[in-house]
Amino acid sequence: MTNITKSNIYANIPASAKDEITEILANSKSVRIERIISTGQTSPEGFFYDQEENEFVIVLKGKAVISFEDGTKVELNEGDFLNIKKHLKHRVDFTSNPTVWLAVFFA
Amino acid sequence: MTNITKSNIYANIPASAKDEITEILANSKSVRIERIISTGQTSPEGFFYDQEENEFVIVLKGKAVISFEDGTKVELNEGDFLNIKKHLKHRVDFTSNPTVWLAVFFA
Repeated sequence: MTNITKSNIYANIPASAKDEITEILANSKSVRIERIISTGQTSPEGFFYDQEENEFVIVLKGKAVISFEDGTKVELNEGDFLNIKKHLKHRVDFTSNPTVWLAVFFA
Repeated sequence: MTNITKSNIYANIPASAKDEITEILANSKSVRIERIISTGQTSPEGFFYDQEENEFVIVLKGKAVISFEDGTKVELNEGDFLNIKKHLKHRVDFTSNPTVWLAVFFA
């Protein structure tokens, strides 16, 4: 039998959790694919992500708001995706409980 | 304003199409992220993909069946994903109309 295992991105979503839950779905030298489950978390006041990698991110379930350093806000509903270039500072202003994200980080 | 554009992966799905429709959502030297819309297409009889890149693939809408050279069949429903290592020969035996795939190809 071919050694291949399917998994489901909507499996094992907690009813709530103190912190976001990140799982790595695939990983290589050049790319990291993550499932992120948010259950209402937001970025700390005044905090911005400033990443070394480009990020493709899609909301698969739920709803979120990402904002940028200049105040631009983007609401993401199911199926909405963004390409966030490396070092483009951004933060998470809102997440529904739950929000299922798929994120691809790459050089 | 921050130069960022959201798009929706479920937008502009044709009612039907002769061929699968592939759109590149993100692209770099190391990774290519594609949306693939199938509307019932399958791989030609006897054909197997034999890819130079690893592929992470998830069915976001619809249903599909992928099979492998040894006859192993994997049914993918909404949210199911596979990591297909490079050169692992595989084919598409079935797609619903429509099937929305997100595929990440990487070295």
